[in-house]
Amino acid sequence: MASMAAVLNKTPFLSQPLTKSPASDLPIAAVSFPSKPRRRNGAVRAGLIAPDGGKLVELIVEEPRRRKKKHEAATELPRVELTAIDMQWMHVLSEGWASPLGGFMRESEFLQTLHFNSLRLDDGSVVNMSVPIVLAIDDEQKASIGESKRVALVDSDGNPVAILTDIEIYKHPKEERIARTWGTTSPGLPYVEEAITNAGNWLIGGDLEVLEPVKYNDGLDRFRLSPAELRKELEKRGADAVFAFQLRNPVHNGHALLMTDTRRRLLEMGYKNPILLLHPLGGYTKADDVPLSWRMKQHEKVLEDGVLDPETTVVSIFPSPMHYAGPTEVQWHAKARINAGANFYIVGRDPAGMGHPVEKRDLYDADHGKKVLSMAPGLERLNILPFKVAAYDKTQGKMAFFDPSRPQDFLFISGTKMRTLAKNKENPPDGFMCPGGWQVLVDYYDSLTPAGNGRLPEVVSA
Amino acid sequence: MASMAAVLNKTPFLSQPLTKSPASDLPIAAVSFPSKPRRRNGAVRAGLIAPDGGKLVELIVEEPRRRKKKHEAATELPRVELTAIDMQWMHVLSEGWASPLGGFMRESEFLQTLHFNSLRLDDGSVVNMSVPIVLAIDDEQKASIGESKRVALVDSDGNPVAILTDIEIYKHPKEERIARTWGTTSPGLPYVEEAITNAGNWLIGGDLEVLEPVKYNDGLDRFRLSPAELRKELEKRGADAVFAFQLRNPVHNGHALLMTDTRRRLLEMGYKNPILLLHPLGGYTKADDVPLSWRMKQHEKVLEDGVLDPETTVVSIFPSPMHYAGPTEVQWHAKARINAGANFYIVGRDPAGMGHPVEKRDLYDADHGKKVLSMAPGLERLNILPFKVAAYDKTQGKMAFFDPSRPQDFLFISGTKMRTLAKNKENPPDGFMCPGGWQVLVDYYDSLTPAGNGRLPEVVSA
Repeated sequence: MASMAAVLNKTPFLSQPLTKSPASDLPIAAVSFPSKPRRRNGAVRAGLIAPDGGKLVELIVEEPRRRKKKHEAATELPRVELTAIDMQWMHVLSEGWASPLGGFMRESEFLQTLHFNSLRLDDGSVVNMSVPIVLAIDDEQKASIGESKRVALVDSDGNPVAILTDIEIYKHPKEERIARTWGTTSPGLPYVEEAITNAGNWLIGGDLEVLEPVKYNDGLDRFRLSPAELRKELEKRGADAVFAFQLRNPVHNGHALLMTDTRRRLLEMGYKNPILLLHPLGGYTKADDVPLSWRMKQHEKVLEDGVLDPETTVVSIFPSPMHYAGPTEVQWHAKARINAGANFYIVGRDPAGMGHPVEKRDLYDADHGKKVLSMAPGLERLNILPFKVAAYDKTQGKMAFFDPSRPQDFLFISGTKMRTLAKNKENPPDGFMCPGGWQVLVDYYDSLTPAGNGRLPEVVSA
Repeated sequence: MASMAAVLNKTPFLSQPLTKSPASDLPIAAVSFPSKPRRRNGAVRAGLIAPDGGKLVELIVEEPRRRKKKHEAATELPRVELTAIDMQWMHVLSEGWASPLGGFMRESEFLQTLHFNSLRLDDGSVVNMSVPIVLAIDDEQKASIGESKRVALVDSDGNPVAILTDIEIYKHPKEERIARTWGTTSPGLPYVEEAITNAGNWLIGGDLEVLEPVKYNDGLDRFRLSPAELRKELEKRGADAVFAFQLRNPVHNGHALLMTDTRRRLLEMGYKNPILLLHPLGGYTKADDVPLSWRMKQHEKVLEDGVLDPETTVVSIFPSPMHYAGPTEVQWHAKARINAGANFYIVGRDPAGMGHPVEKRDLYDADHGKKVLSMAPGLERLNILPFKVAAYDKTQGKMAFFDPSRPQDFLFISGTKMRTLAKNKENPPDGFMCPGGWQVLVDYYDSLTPAGNGRLPEVVSA
């Protein structure tokens, strides 16, 4: 197995040799995305699931028109300044993660999202869309736009980054948006406090034209493959099944077991070359989650230590911000991965869930996520793989699938417990996480610790 | 025109002569429900829209099995006592208004309703279902059911009224149910306070078998036609279009104008015999709405006074309780009428809306109801007719469609204003409502007035 360290310095997913599949010598159609493996000349063809709406929507202005658009944005249009989270959504839209959505939602899309978690297209077909992707503006911005049908979107330095055209401005019904998205209006919802409570009372939708590909210049841009780039890589590898694993936490050996076992099951099902898309979320997360840069270091160690096989794993960053909206949000997480070519989606216990902000209970029933996902409109083409519960098996000294016939042998190590151990520089049981990965976590919490004080004041709940 | 008073003593809708349509001599197929008028021998056939799921679900036990079921319910099963609102939902289910739903919702139906406002059927088709039809039980009732797979549902006197079989008991996530249904968790939502806040922490779903047709013995049962009875009546009348008008308020001449105008438009579209289904809601309403019995008296006067044409109008009671859940609930109101044979639905401003319970604003955007309804999954077959705004035209001395070119000529008389006038025994402008109908309202408020006091303390907002 190649060293991942070297690989990570370039582009890890691209540097792997193309796995030789029976069909690898056949020409690969670049445009068509058959949803089922096709046979031609008796061989299984690598073919990726079609994007929602049939075509991947990319909203980045191409070079010949870029200069003119930039000039227009800089000199001719009213301006709307984007927050960091707005920029992340613009990134999401620009690369087609939300295909076929062509920009920030207009009211008809917003209402369908809130009420139906899906959008009906002109041809009568339905795509999933569970989380509002909207842009809020305040009274002053609305007034400054006046009768214009186009606005320039600018970053926090005032640099134009996009144009929104054929705009529609409508009321931002915050209470209703929150209630229908989160199933609660409790104070203390992280995304709400960060991005909604103080946002403007209007929403502006329209068709988006992004002036340049979005870059963060944080050393991680090479991991930010767009759906089109992922599809290209997956096709190059000859994947005949792609299983996506969404995560916003460090990878422990229970996760790894699950991913390895999923691949084994897919091979048993007759797939020849299932590829894992290990897809950490890269946008906004709440304050007590481990930051992206540290998670990426940890994931690197996990691959380096051979816990996951780089030959059959693509690591990339999913640019979406996190809502922590449980069953509503997990649909978004799954739908976006269809657009990147995944036809299998691993769903865990309480996906995108968290503790209730003010009551002593989980915000969502732990089983609702997978139930809702399995019934969601527009996700019929996606194969949902429910997470088997893994825990630390004391008799084997490693992570294993929980065996309900001998519960006393298993130790459940929650995210909170894991963070507490790492913060206090205590070690988890051997076999919980590879040592290199664990050290990254310890280093992270160490970097937070005020000088001369070995402990953080209090552990925040997951 | 026949006297409606006489007619109401029997069954007004059945007593009208069958309108002679070109197809009235042709045999009528009793089972098939074509969704479009068919032509046979060159004539337009009267054909009603098919019920959701293709077949009207009726859950009332037929006579040969009734005795045995009653015995089982009375002697062999654990019991769950129903509230008045539970009984209304049982009524709704028993007659197939919620077809193809076969009983109180199990969790998969409940979750689909909350998240998607629709249910996916086994054949992959989708029907609308926006309001949870669920039965709550408390810990004690749950314990008493134990491992039984069947329970008897009993009324407040302990008499068995139904059997629920193949039951599923699951958690009642009240906060989430309220947030996703109403788009708010504000205190003061009438249905929530009446039926959810103090309800049990569990929901029980299953297949429903109702032991007898539901009767209220309030003198109005003759108006409570089931969907099957309505379909029979509409077919008998040779209706080739059925337009439903949901209401929970007295009918004024603005409503009448709208209904008359709708019929005119349908005739212009080429329909030969459009029938109005005037369909007041008969279940739970909030305390300051006019009670059903008085509304029915008022509707009777409206027909008697010739404001609506009894020949082309069917008056019947819709047995559902009222949620006041705006855009979510209007879908239920429309969907249920498909099951009764309506293929056109008139939707007004802010349907099923009310004032926000604690803020000084409407709970819902007045336009969201019709927008959501027009995009709702499973309602594609229903023609939505947006309400034209009618107001009192001072220049004509009657209700007329609002003309935005001369707003100063129009007087808007809100429900609140109407109630205030009636309570204070003041008259509305001539032509606002027929005198007989107005007198019913005055009599109603008079019946509430404490003896010797000519006025009610305070007018409650609509």
